[in-house]
Amino acid sequence: MNDDDAGTVGADAFVCSGFFYMVEVILMTEIKSFAVIGGDKRQIYCGQSLQEDGFDVYFGGFDKCSEKYRLTAHKPDELIGLCDAFILPLPCTRDKLHVNAPFAEENIPLSLFESVKDKKPVFCGMKERLPFEGQKIYDYSTSEEFAVLNAVPTAEGAIETAMHEYEGTLNGSRCLVTGYGRIGKILSFMLRGIGADVTVSSQRKDAHAFIRAEGMKAILSSELCGRYDIIFNTAPSLLFDRKTLTSLVGSPLIIDLASYPGGVDTKAADDLSLRVMQALSLPGKVAPKSAGIIIKNAVYNILGEEL
Amino acid sequence: MNDDDAGTVGADAFVCSGFFYMVEVILMTEIKSFAVIGGDKRQIYCGQSLQEDGFDVYFGGFDKCSEKYRLTAHKPDELIGLCDAFILPLPCTRDKLHVNAPFAEENIPLSLFESVKDKKPVFCGMKERLPFEGQKIYDYSTSEEFAVLNAVPTAEGAIETAMHEYEGTLNGSRCLVTGYGRIGKILSFMLRGIGADVTVSSQRKDAHAFIRAEGMKAILSSELCGRYDIIFNTAPSLLFDRKTLTSLVGSPLIIDLASYPGGVDTKAADDLSLRVMQALSLPGKVAPKSAGIIIKNAVYNILGEEL
Amino acid sequence: MNDDDAGTVGADAFVCSGFFYMVEVILMTEIKSFAVIGGDKRQIYCGQSLQEDGFDVYFGGFDKCSEKYRLTAHKPDELIGLCDAFILPLPCTRDKLHVNAPFAEENIPLSLFESVKDKKPVFCGMKERLPFEGQKIYDYSTSEEFAVLNAVPTAEGAIETAMHEYEGTLNGSRCLVTGYGRIGKILSFMLRGIGADVTVSSQRKDAHAFIRAEGMKAILSSELCGRYDIIFNTAPSLLFDRKTLTSLVGSPLIIDLASYPGGVDTKAADDLSLRVMQALSLPGKVAPKSAGIIIKNAVYNILGEEL
Amino acid sequence: MNDDDAGTVGADAFVCSGFFYMVEVILMTEIKSFAVIGGDKRQIYCGQSLQEDGFDVYFGGFDKCSEKYRLTAHKPDELIGLCDAFILPLPCTRDKLHVNAPFAEENIPLSLFESVKDKKPVFCGMKERLPFEGQKIYDYSTSEEFAVLNAVPTAEGAIETAMHEYEGTLNGSRCLVTGYGRIGKILSFMLRGIGADVTVSSQRKDAHAFIRAEGMKAILSSELCGRYDIIFNTAPSLLFDRKTLTSLVGSPLIIDLASYPGGVDTKAADDLSLRVMQALSLPGKVAPKSAGIIIKNAVYNILGEEL
Repeated sequence: MNDDDAGTVGADAFVCSGFFYMVEVILMTEIKSFAVIGGDKRQIYCGQSLQEDGFDVYFGGFDKCSEKYRLTAHKPDELIGLCDAFILPLPCTRDKLHVNAPFAEENIPLSLFESVKDKKPVFCGMKERLPFEGQKIYDYSTSEEFAVLNAVPTAEGAIETAMHEYEGTLNGSRCLVTGYGRIGKILSFMLRGIGADVTVSSQRKDAHAFIRAEGMKAILSSELCGRYDIIFNTAPSLLFDRKTLTSLVGSPLIIDLASYPGGVDTKAADDLSLRVMQALSLPGKVAPKSAGIIIKNAVYNILGEEL
Repeated sequence: MNDDDAGTVGADAFVCSGFFYMVEVILMTEIKSFAVIGGDKRQIYCGQSLQEDGFDVYFGGFDKCSEKYRLTAHKPDELIGLCDAFILPLPCTRDKLHVNAPFAEENIPLSLFESVKDKKPVFCGMKERLPFEGQKIYDYSTSEEFAVLNAVPTAEGAIETAMHEYEGTLNGSRCLVTGYGRIGKILSFMLRGIGADVTVSSQRKDAHAFIRAEGMKAILSSELCGRYDIIFNTAPSLLFDRKTLTSLVGSPLIIDLASYPGGVDTKAADDLSLRVMQALSLPGKVAPKSAGIIIKNAVYNILGEEL
Repeated sequence: MNDDDAGTVGADAFVCSGFFYMVEVILMTEIKSFAVIGGDKRQIYCGQSLQEDGFDVYFGGFDKCSEKYRLTAHKPDELIGLCDAFILPLPCTRDKLHVNAPFAEENIPLSLFESVKDKKPVFCGMKERLPFEGQKIYDYSTSEEFAVLNAVPTAEGAIETAMHEYEGTLNGSRCLVTGYGRIGKILSFMLRGIGADVTVSSQRKDAHAFIRAEGMKAILSSELCGRYDIIFNTAPSLLFDRKTLTSLVGSPLIIDLASYPGGVDTKAADDLSLRVMQALSLPGKVAPKSAGIIIKNAVYNILGEEL
Repeated sequence: MNDDDAGTVGADAFVCSGFFYMVEVILMTEIKSFAVIGGDKRQIYCGQSLQEDGFDVYFGGFDKCSEKYRLTAHKPDELIGLCDAFILPLPCTRDKLHVNAPFAEENIPLSLFESVKDKKPVFCGMKERLPFEGQKIYDYSTSEEFAVLNAVPTAEGAIETAMHEYEGTLNGSRCLVTGYGRIGKILSFMLRGIGADVTVSSQRKDAHAFIRAEGMKAILSSELCGRYDIIFNTAPSLLFDRKTLTSLVGSPLIIDLASYPGGVDTKAADDLSLRVMQALSLPGKVAPKSAGIIIKNAVYNILGEEL
């Protein structure tokens, strides 16, 4: 993943755009150093990408993996005074008391940030979970852009899962993608791109127009009949109830991308011996590097807009 | 792997969808005959497509071209009592007194329809122009689907224009598409599809995420600098003022799809000897057959929903 | 415009082709039953696909997995007299004495087939390994078509490997594919299709013309410098010697699809701490179903041409 | 068309390649000036592109259009002594006595070049038409690369013709491309890219494998039945005889790209009232700029290899 590298690829066309981002960050802010505190691999890649962009980056809460990733582990409390800005993970906390830091040896109390929350920017994912508010607390996980960018690793994760589980090739296979939202759009684009025979379901007739214009077949979500080799469910509702599952021809592999409780009646699927794979929170699993850079870019956008 | 099933797949998948439309039309309505009154080639294709679907279709207001298109020309007033439903063109009228009927030898007064407007369905484009209302008057031109479907012939018309005017090949050329709305999405998809090097501008960062995910470059609408061979403007605002035109590298061909007054300062373009092509109302010009079938499908959708 | 005809189109177009295959098999041969003897999962899928096409199929040499795949295991010697035709695996033998049958509990001597080799068709992979010849022994593994068809699962296997090993997304990543032969063509097509930034190397200038026409970048095999995230080697020669590996910018993941000894100086790669993944005989591993159907179609082609 | 510009687009990846071409031309030759003598628009673009690359270029035989294209017209005979190399058009001559120079006011005798043909490079198209041979006479029109590069403007010209003549959109239309050679490959790629439903015919089963891998349908050239909206013939033989034309469903538009006598029985087509468009020598007509740059690159390749 290299959104921002697209520049180097795109020569002229991107000179402006690349320059634009740098202006935002270098000129419009006084930030020279970031503390990346807590989180998983994504945060590590986020920090390393910040370093490549020329910032000083200090890692806190990665004691358990500092060796593996060759990081200098710092004590979080020491970083509070030292750094100009802070990046917390997504979600920033699970217990509303400590930073979500699976690689930390000791708990990192959120209270650490009370002293800076109104003075230095603190970037979090899902900031509503914080027990306090602050003038300088920003949430990088709420923008539509952030959601779309994360749909890319999600779609790729779904394809990787399908390639791994399906005993045929996706190329030439009959794939159904339910839903034409962020993930549905990008997933169907990629599936067609590798030569699958793609059908997309949507209840919106205007979506059908786009789907067909892009060389795919469109059906209504209320008509999920037909023969498919693989079904990717991106819709958050129970589309695949017993009735629909029974109406399917053959034994498609079903990959469910919808978060709990998902879009498939698994009990019915079992009875009909249809395989259903749950595929959740894929970005962090399949492409932590991309996910980390997405967080970095989201932080840059906030810096560009807010500061 | 199922090469040779490819066909049947489509088949299956569409049985439902095709069937769905027929149910709508045959079961849910009593309509057996349509009168297609006024309009241009699009309306003729619309009527012929209705015939292929099994309806009786009578044409009124095509006297001047009835021979050329082998149509039986009927007198509009005779059709009022004869037919079950009526299709008027887009727009249905220009003078608010008569049907918009360029191929008619005599004016067709709108008043003809006053007697049926509450009893039989009358399908119009831009019905707000009618001097009267009616319980059975429907507008097929207002749905989002209709707009998206018409973006396809518009995009192709833009490509045909570019191929005709540009002395190089689009394949390998540097194309800029401004705007990522209906037309921008479909046009950029097609341009990438024929191997152009495509950049799309949008002011929305989430649009950038989609654009890059689909293998194109994205820039902000406020940064239209860079070197392009062809620029397609789909944005309705004056993006290409003198300042922007001056910042362009080389001498791109500019194809303006934005309706009057358009998105280009043509005076400045002249001064800079940049070629600007206006390309307007393309669907009817470049693909009347498609445009006619789009109208037919829009009518079907209304029949399915309203009746 | 014919959205909803898409299905029927395929149908029409394929009637002939599908019909053609059936003619070959049903009319032009007297074969009613096949014996699938030896081999792995691919052969099982090959046999099951023959059953779906209406043939009687008997499996021999699958005792160890008959339960798992719900097969009736037959004793190979009993099938010789019973069946009209025989399908041996790829390769048909490893020791030149017995059928290559990893799932068989007892060795299956090739001598079994001596009695039928001139009377009934025996389809093998790599028949040159057989200790005898026969008028009715056919090799399904030698046609160019067979090789191209197997390039599809190979390319997908390479993509699955890359998705699994690379910590970013392929979408937006800089991929280099060395070689524009069967695998290079299909792999680069798929990579572009999922939105990677693809460069293909070839020593042939005419290949460059095709590569660029399809919207990718082309370089000479003698100029493998530049920055890539992932490199797929399909060329059978040592392209990546120490000198070339040293000239690479960054730390690309290298996926080597070239059979032993491969195209990478692994010692040098280690020294430069570049990760190299060997990815060999992918079709049977990642898509046994496709691989099995490919064998079946190859048998059909022979039946159509030879009998 | 900008093969060589692909460099600017492709950043890093192309540094090497771009550099490579320059080395060839600047270091490996003593050529400082070119004379472009005779030919049409293509030759003018070829010369202008040479100028952009830093060469001195003199135009001879363009008196009739020198004003329109702002060229300084030179007398050919004066250029013989003045320039280091000469570029003649494709074909270099029609009457075997004079240069093929439609824009020249006076005939340009080929004999002019007798004095230099062994000393300075003379680049021609179809040099076999020259009445003499020479140690330094090179033909830029014979390489496979040259043929493939010209297939791009040919394919685009075919698409432009189809867009102009067909009353529907290519997007969603059923297109048949006969033949999977240079033009068939690039044309089918582009048609799929703009969302057409593409079937390609070929007599080679291995071609079918590639065609299907790229998400299109494949049929045998001996089975050209089925329903199509547009048929593109690239095959040089009479595929569309009366029998085949009669077997077609509906009334497809036929675009014949095969040179005289073409691939269609036009008499039979008339009888069946099928429209047939001849589309020949498209590169010079639809994309003279691309065609000119293709000639320049072919000259560069010869310079790199021969000198």
